[in-house]
Formats: sequence, structure tokens, C-alpha cells
Amino acid sequence: MIKTADHLYLQVADNIEQLIEKEVMKIGEKLPSVRMLSKQQGISLSTAFQAYYHLEAKGLIESRPKSGYYIKFNSRRMPAMPSASAPVRKSCEVTVSEMVLQVFHQYRGTGIMDFSIAMPPATVLPAAKMAKAVTHALRTLPDYGVGYEPLQGNATLRQQIARLSLSWGAAFTGDDIITTNGCMDALTLSLSASTKPGDTIAIESPAYHGSMQLAESLGLKVLELPMHPVHGVDLAYLDKAIPKHKIKACLFVTNFNNPLGTCMAEKDKKKLVDIIVKHDIALIEDDIYGDLYFGKQRPVNCKTFDKLGHVILCSSISKSLAPGYRVGWAIPGRYKDKMLRIKHNHSLATASITQAAVGHFLEIGRYEFHLRNLRKILHTQCLRYTQAINEYFPESTKVSRPLGGCVLWVELEDHINTFELFQQALKHQITFCPGRIFSLQNKYNNCLRISFGTPFSKQVEDSLKTLGKLIRKMS
Amino acid sequence: MIKTADHLYLQVADNIEQLIEKEVMKIGEKLPSVRMLSKQQGISLSTAFQAYYHLEAKGLIESRPKSGYYIKFNSRRMPAMPSASAPVRKSCEVTVSEMVLQVFHQYRGTGIMDFSIAMPPATVLPAAKMAKAVTHALRTLPDYGVGYEPLQGNATLRQQIARLSLSWGAAFTGDDIITTNGCMDALTLSLSASTKPGDTIAIESPAYHGSMQLAESLGLKVLELPMHPVHGVDLAYLDKAIPKHKIKACLFVTNFNNPLGTCMAEKDKKKLVDIIVKHDIALIEDDIYGDLYFGKQRPVNCKTFDKLGHVILCSSISKSLAPGYRVGWAIPGRYKDKMLRIKHNHSLATASITQAAVGHFLEIGRYEFHLRNLRKILHTQCLRYTQAINEYFPESTKVSRPLGGCVLWVELEDHINTFELFQQALKHQITFCPGRIFSLQNKYNNCLRISFGTPFSKQVEDSLKTLGKLIRKMS
Repeated sequence: MIKTADHLYLQVADNIEQLIEKEVMKIGEKLPSVRMLSKQQGISLSTAFQAYYHLEAKGLIESRPKSGYYIKFNSRRMPAMPSASAPVRKSCEVTVSEMVLQVFHQYRGTGIMDFSIAMPPATVLPAAKMAKAVTHALRTLPDYGVGYEPLQGNATLRQQIARLSLSWGAAFTGDDIITTNGCMDALTLSLSASTKPGDTIAIESPAYHGSMQLAESLGLKVLELPMHPVHGVDLAYLDKAIPKHKIKACLFVTNFNNPLGTCMAEKDKKKLVDIIVKHDIALIEDDIYGDLYFGKQRPVNCKTFDKLGHVILCSSISKSLAPGYRVGWAIPGRYKDKMLRIKHNHSLATASITQAAVGHFLEIGRYEFHLRNLRKILHTQCLRYTQAINEYFPESTKVSRPLGGCVLWVELEDHINTFELFQQALKHQITFCPGRIFSLQNKYNNCLRISFGTPFSKQVEDSLKTLGKLIRKMS
Repeated sequence: MIKTADHLYLQVADNIEQLIEKEVMKIGEKLPSVRMLSKQQGISLSTAFQAYYHLEAKGLIESRPKSGYYIKFNSRRMPAMPSASAPVRKSCEVTVSEMVLQVFHQYRGTGIMDFSIAMPPATVLPAAKMAKAVTHALRTLPDYGVGYEPLQGNATLRQQIARLSLSWGAAFTGDDIITTNGCMDALTLSLSASTKPGDTIAIESPAYHGSMQLAESLGLKVLELPMHPVHGVDLAYLDKAIPKHKIKACLFVTNFNNPLGTCMAEKDKKKLVDIIVKHDIALIEDDIYGDLYFGKQRPVNCKTFDKLGHVILCSSISKSLAPGYRVGWAIPGRYKDKMLRIKHNHSLATASITQAAVGHFLEIGRYEFHLRNLRKILHTQCLRYTQAINEYFPESTKVSRPLGGCVLWVELEDHINTFELFQQALKHQITFCPGRIFSLQNKYNNCLRISFGTPFSKQVEDSLKTLGKLIRKMS
């Protein structure tokens, strides 16, 4: 893996950021001039400029013409966190609405400010470099890749995915991995391998709408679990619910949960695995956002603590590299044979060229390099979006504080219906995800999910301002 | 579509072939010398040579040194056709065996003579031209194709697939089509859209093992229908079985059925659609071999006669162009909305680059050009394989006479177990499909499926000879 020293200006900027966070330096306060900073820190003028420029891009300070830099951001002024969820404590037949198709597939088009899709736009992805990797795949695959790949997947890609597991404290081999047609396909195979129609699975609440719809199409019932906005799933509750509701599998997004942003603590992940093993059921761990952390280190996975193969880890490069390639994977533990059989039945193989291209991109070390950059971009955007929401939405607004990923969960006052807001916003060419689609119960009608994938710009700011106005009108 | 006049030598060869088929010219008979043929037909010497060379490649005539050309083939000497099937007349819970994984995934490797895979090898596919199409896709897709394609599929590809429907007497538009991750994925979506777990579907017997395993993994029960080796499914029986067994969908391969080779007559296809409509159920028509016809014209589909949208046509380019690309499609009729929702739940989108590459290849007219060549190759191989089986297998052997596709169905004497034969053959580096995998019932143990995709060669001939010897030993 590539390890480069952080640039000097980043070190300086980080130090200032900490002072701001700890309120050593307060909102509205003037910062030392660039010349002064250069002297104080023993750095060049241009490095000092870069440090301020970086903090400005993050929305922490602002430059006032002919006056200098001022502190703009104060963590105390951050909106409150969303409430802990309390879904109805029974399992429900899944009745998935048309809402999702309406949000995702009827209003696509140019000119739309799209806050609905939970991923970075193509402009921040290494598209040209991936194209080179495709060309490399064409050159190196037998018969230019027209033939089938092995059922389990391209060998180079599997080996590289295995190497990625080092970053979350595990050490798998290529033979432990099955490649899939994106992460959704990995989830489909995982649920099919660990449950049968009529079974009940447990998910978070709110939960990724795709998981619930998938459960419906597989004939599964779903129990929604209460969630704390910081700690995640209520484990004591889960421990009792498993036997009571005859849960056959849990499907959780443990790192930078979609939509809540929660990242489970390491000790809770361990505890969760213990519970799963005790009841001898499956944990399907959707780790698609795990690599998009804002902190110093990648969080571990439940799979890290899985000794007996109860955990099926699912992921893909769709949030970080090339969504259109449809390359994902599962580390299926004891479900491997069953999952291979199901993959054979449903699709025979994963596409050869895109698998080989991603494998090559990882092999030459480009992926980690790209991720370092992408994480910084997303972190900055997360802060900019949060500030804009803080500025333009009503004061009672609550917002999640994700430490990774690319979505914010926003809670408005109870009486505001965000599906109505969605329809209003569409008239202004703005889309987002109404909270209602993140539950099978009639809940989260006053919430919305805003993706901060799109680089912050005047248009983004104006759109959030417009949303704020629409919300105030509905208040 | 490209329309080129057949070469002169082919016309002459065709005429001679007809004379052989009608036994105007009999086995062992000497043909006119090349010089004589040239005079008789008013063609050049080299054209006369080409005609004989072509007939020799097809295995119809043979050249005897210093003597001339002789007729080698006689349709009367063709092995008998397999019996009509008579599966047990009740539906069964699917209990799919490990046999399939053993046949397809444990014994791959170089040096194996593989008669098990029902497709042409990469060597007869336009691999280099497809690679060019991929490069074109990279150049023309927005952001080099890293982004998602629309849920329904790449627009150019859908339009080109729609144009293909002209060849089977229909006129669909791109909007009628959903692209999928290969034909298996199309079948998965079709079954999911037209049935729910616990339902019963009707299939042919023998039937493609993949369909039965797919049914199992979707929690479906399966009724196997009796088949005539030439006419296909017993329609009178089906008409009664639908209400009796509460059939919710039929899944048939109507053109060049796998494994039996049957091609349903046009009037039977019409009749089948009438039955489906009368009972208001779905017909899933797997048309993956439809383009690989040996005759003058492409057979029509049931979908050609489907006015109300009861028929879901599924196909792909996996048998004709690039299996590894995993590009297939469905024309779902009235199941379109439901199928789009299920596609959204299971995989979000089909891979962008491979879709665009296939779309481009079709758009520039390369596909039809390639197919014309591939059909001739497969027709010749079909005849060569049949002759070799006739020569080396015991006289009691029965063999199907497909008019398209790439497999032969071989029926041996009752007491011969072809799974045992399979294990014997493996020791000689030969694989094929034992008949048992084509039924959920304990049937077809004395049958085997032999793919004639691999170009006929000394090695192929020797392997068939070895198989023949092994069979005789078991007799």
C-alpha cells in the first residue's frame, strides 16, 4: 500500500482546525495574517496560503476582502443530532412503495440538482484511469475477454480484494471471496444463501430502502430495529428479538450507515458477532461505505471478529471507483458453497472485462491513492453541506454527523411531510430522498436524506437555500 | 441489415447436398470429376473445387486419393431419433443435485475435450472486433462509462435489439426492452416477475438444467411436460395441466431446444400462445439459440404472436458473440413495470461498457455478418459430430437432429448409466452432460448431451471414438 507523508500545509491546517473545534479560537475571531502565520510556524508564505485556502474550502474560515481570514465555523452552532429511532416492535410484511421508483427513475435529467443518489459524481472518480485499466484488461485477458470468467470470479481481482481486508484487520485469501454484479447482487446472493422465503430478517431503522425492497422480492419478512444515531443498533434489544421473532439473518450497514451515518464502535461490533454466533444465525454486513472514512483510520468490520463464518461481508467499488462497472463481492464464510450454487443458477459468471480492469487498478496501487483524495473531498463536502443546512434550514432542524460515507440524515419538525417537500422541490429541479422510503412502517415522514456527493458550489448552496425556504413555507 | 448474394460454389454445393439427401446420389457413389462438374455447371475449375471442398468439410463426401470424390453420407444411415419423453405426471419439489457443479466447475482445465458447454468456443467468436467495440464504448460513453446506465439499459443497445426482432416477424421498439446481466439473469427476473415462491411452473422434459436450478432457488415447484423430439411440448397435455396443477408460468426453449434440439412449428407456437392467453398465465420464452439456425430463415417466436403481453422473451449474445460480457435482455410485455422494479432491487443497472460495446457492434452491422459465418460453421460441425457418433457409438444409439443451436441429445441403451460414463470419460480427459441433470425426476440416466461447439478435429473424432469404446464396454 502507498504511504505518503501528509503535506506540511495540511498539518498546519489540521492544528488550526483542532483549535477551532475546541473553541480555543472562536467564531468571528480574526486569524493571524498569512505573513504572521508563516513566521509563527516557520513555513513559507505559499504554504501558509495553502493552509488557509484548505480551511476555507472546508468552510471553517472565510476571507473578508482587504481584512484577512476569520473563523466562520463553530461546532456548538452545529444542528442537533436526529432522535434515536423507535420503530413499531413487530415484524411487517414488506409492502414496498412506488415512491422509490419515483424518486430514482422518473425525474433524472440534466439541470437537476440531485441530492438523492448516495455516491460521488463521475467528475471526482478516476474515469480516464479506469478506461486505461479496461484497455489493459482487453490486452491481457485470453481472447480479449469474450469468454466466461470462473464462477467464483477473476483470480487477480479476488486476490486484490483479499489484500484490502488487511486495512480492516483481517487477512483473507482470494479463495474466500466471490465476485458479484455490484453490491446489490452480493446482498441478493447473501440473503438467498442464508434464508428462505417466509423467513424474517432484522434490519436497522431507518434502513437503506434497497435492502427492504430486496427482502420483499425474496419473499422475506422484515423486523426493523431501534437505532441510536451514534451507537447504532440496540444490541440488547436484538439479543431478545432474535429468538422471539425467529430471525434468520441480520442485514446491517455497520460503517457509515445509510442513511443515519452511524459507525458502530469496535466493541459493539465484537458484541454483535457474539450475539449472532450465540443464536447461530447469519449477519450480512454491507460494508460499501467502509473505505470512505474521514478520520485517521479505517474502521474494522464485524467480519474482522468472525471466526466461524457466520458473517457475510458484502461490498463493491460502486461508491468509490466505477458504479457503472457493476463489480462487487462477498466474503461468505460458511455460506460459500451455497452462494456459489446460487450464483451459478442466477447469472453463471460476472462480466470478465470490468472485473479484470478493477483487479488491475487495485494491483498497481491506484485505488488507495485515489481513495486518499476522495476521502478529503467528501469530508470537506460533508462540512460544507452541514453548514449550509444549518444556515438555511429552520433552527429546529436536526442533522446527523457522519464520520464517513456520503449522506446526511435530516430531521425536520414532526408536522412536515418530506414527500410533499420532495414534490415541491422537484418544481425547482431539486431531488432528495424522502425519509418515508427508509422504513416499511409509516415513519420518518418528517425526515430526508441528502447526499453530499456533488461538489459544493453556488448551485448546491442555492438549492439548499431553496429547500430551506420551502420547508419554512410548510412550517 | 447486410444482404450478400451467396457465393456460386455454395449454390452448386447446395444442389449436390439436396441430391444426396433425396438419395438421388447414393452412398459410395462416385461424383463427377472436378473437370466434369466445371463443364456441366458452367463454372470455373476453382469454383468446382470449392464446392467439393465445402461438401467434404461438411462430411457429406470424401476424397479418395487418385480416384476422386465419393458420397460418404446417407440420411438413411443416420441414427434413429430419441424417444418422445414421458415424465411422471405430477409436479415435484425441486431437489437439484451437486451433479451440475461437478460437471461444470470441478473439472475445467487445459487438455480437456469439453463436450459439456453448449456454446461455440472463443476461437470462432469475433473477439478482436469486440475489443474494438469496447474501445469505442470507452471513447463515446460519458465519463468513460464509470457512471450508471439507466435502469432499463443502454439506449443504443435496446434500439438494436429491437431491430433484431424484425428477423422473427415482430417490430418492437427500444422502450419494450430491458437489458440484463446475461440470459440467466433475464430468466431470473422473468420468473420473479410472473410467479411467487410456492407457485408451480411448467417446463419441458428433458429441460435445461439451469432453468430447474433457478426454479429451485426461487422456491418454485416444477411440472415436467412430455416432449416430442420433433414437435416439442405436448400442447393438448399442457392445456389440461395448467388448471390441474395451477401452473403460473411456462418456461420453454421454443427454438433449437436445449437439450433436445426441437424447433416448434409456427402453427404450434401460435397455438401455445392461445393456450397461455386462455389461461391468463405467463410464457417465458428462452430464445437464446434462435439466431443459430441452419436453414434458410430464422424461425419466428411465440412472442411474434403475443398481442397482449403474456410472453416474456429472454435472450442474450452469450451463445453467439461474447459470453463473458454478460449482456442479455428481456422483452417483458405486461410484466415490464414489475420487472424493472425487481431489476432495481437486485442489481440497479447492467454494466455500462459491455452494453455499449455490444450496442455498437450491432449498430455497425457486424453482428449479422458474424452470424452468417457462425451458422455455417455450426451446421457443418453438427453433421460431422453426428456422423462420428454414428460411426463410433453402438448401433442402437439414437441421436437428435437439430436444425440449429449447438447440442446433440444422445440416447443409449436403457441399462447404460451416463453419469458412470461421465466419470469414466473424465479419466480420458473428456466431459459431456449426463442426461440425469436435465430432469428433476430420476430420468434420462441413459442419455447424454454433446455440444458440437468445438470445431471438429482429429482430437474431437478420437474423443468420440473413445466415448464409443467406453459405452461398448458398459453394454
